[in-house]
Amino acid sequence: MAIAVPALPFTFVVHALAVIGAVFVLVWVLHFRGGIAWEATNKSLIFNLHPVLMLIGLIIIGGEAIISYKALIWRKEVKKLIHLVLHAIALILGCIGIYAAFKYHNESSIANLYSLHSWLGISVIVLYGIQWIYGFLLFFYPGGTDALRSASLPWHVLFGLFVYVLAVATAAIGFLEKLTFLESSGLAKYGSEALLVNFTAVLTIIYGAFVILSVSSQAPAEDDYSYSAIE
Amino acid sequence: MAIAVPALPFTFVVHALAVIGAVFVLVWVLHFRGGIAWEATNKSLIFNLHPVLMLIGLIIIGGEAIISYKALIWRKEVKKLIHLVLHAIALILGCIGIYAAFKYHNESSIANLYSLHSWLGISVIVLYGIQWIYGFLLFFYPGGTDALRSASLPWHVLFGLFVYVLAVATAAIGFLEKLTFLESSGLAKYGSEALLVNFTAVLTIIYGAFVILSVSSQAPAEDDYSYSAIE
Repeated sequence: MAIAVPALPFTFVVHALAVIGAVFVLVWVLHFRGGIAWEATNKSLIFNLHPVLMLIGLIIIGGEAIISYKALIWRKEVKKLIHLVLHAIALILGCIGIYAAFKYHNESSIANLYSLHSWLGISVIVLYGIQWIYGFLLFFYPGGTDALRSASLPWHVLFGLFVYVLAVATAAIGFLEKLTFLESSGLAKYGSEALLVNFTAVLTIIYGAFVILSVSSQAPAEDDYSYSAIE
Repeated sequence: MAIAVPALPFTFVVHALAVIGAVFVLVWVLHFRGGIAWEATNKSLIFNLHPVLMLIGLIIIGGEAIISYKALIWRKEVKKLIHLVLHAIALILGCIGIYAAFKYHNESSIANLYSLHSWLGISVIVLYGIQWIYGFLLFFYPGGTDALRSASLPWHVLFGLFVYVLAVATAAIGFLEKLTFLESSGLAKYGSEALLVNFTAVLTIIYGAFVILSVSSQAPAEDDYSYSAIE
């Protein structure tokens, strides 16, 4: 049940929220949490890679990948290429981000995979990978039959959005989990860092909502740009 | 982009998961957490009302309300009445559940409304209430014009599902938050209670996914039941 309004304005909101979200998470880890590092004696700097890569990679670039059919006004083939390349980047950054969390745990002797956040995160990255491979094989190369493609497309959209919403929820859960650890170690519950982290999580959810809203509304006509350039 | 499969089998999964979810949360609070109470010297018993009422009320009954058009085979008017009554029950139980959380905080001198879970929870209950009132006025009594109804319906569905998904995510965040508090007070990270709470959260998410899947697939024909009774 698509809504009968153009998607383009919603996609502008997505781009704007993407920039704000990236700034928020960078301010958090660089200003409040001491920065990021791949190797460090202060193991927290390794952890800090995790929220940055997951938010900017999996959520923000993944969201831009999802809306590429609604945000761009080029030919479908070009949009498809952008869709799959952005999703590949999101997936790779997501994998590195998850690896950083394990690396931090292992070098700090913290238990792995006991929390809901970790369970959901592993599920998301596996499902995201399956969705990408299946989409690549069916819609790009070698490509399924027309009948199989048209039968699969609604499932591709529905399953893709499910995985994405789960990714957004997992991110929100992660922000809450990290903040709860910090607050139990003495961070002020109403302090500026706590507010920043909560606002980043809220912004992540609103970002996800505008991604879904973009997908649920009307795509711009193909080649709108070249068309208006002729007129 | 609805998927071309009948919704009815998905709705059976929703009912089954509803029962399992209700059992899980009751086992948690009654067996592991010492039970529930409205007035008690052990304030934790007041808190325990919160997950029970939110999961069984807002999430489970709310989910059943959402799928009523797909799960039932009666006339549309009957389904609409069931839809709005179940949502009213979900909303009332949700409000009592949120009140129980504040009551526990206030009687235990715990700060209110600092966490992401609380922020999202308040947003959900307010949006849920607005959605219910707007739906009642527009689609039930006094009812809008036909043009307004048909223009509003896709937004009603989209906004309703957004609020519901946000409610499911907030519930998952709540399970993680409570478990993180318990684990920082010494609860075993891989113990049976921790696994039960995590599985309840995962089940809540799968329940939400099957609610969405039911809504995204094909409704049974109206009056299927009476029709087949005639044949």
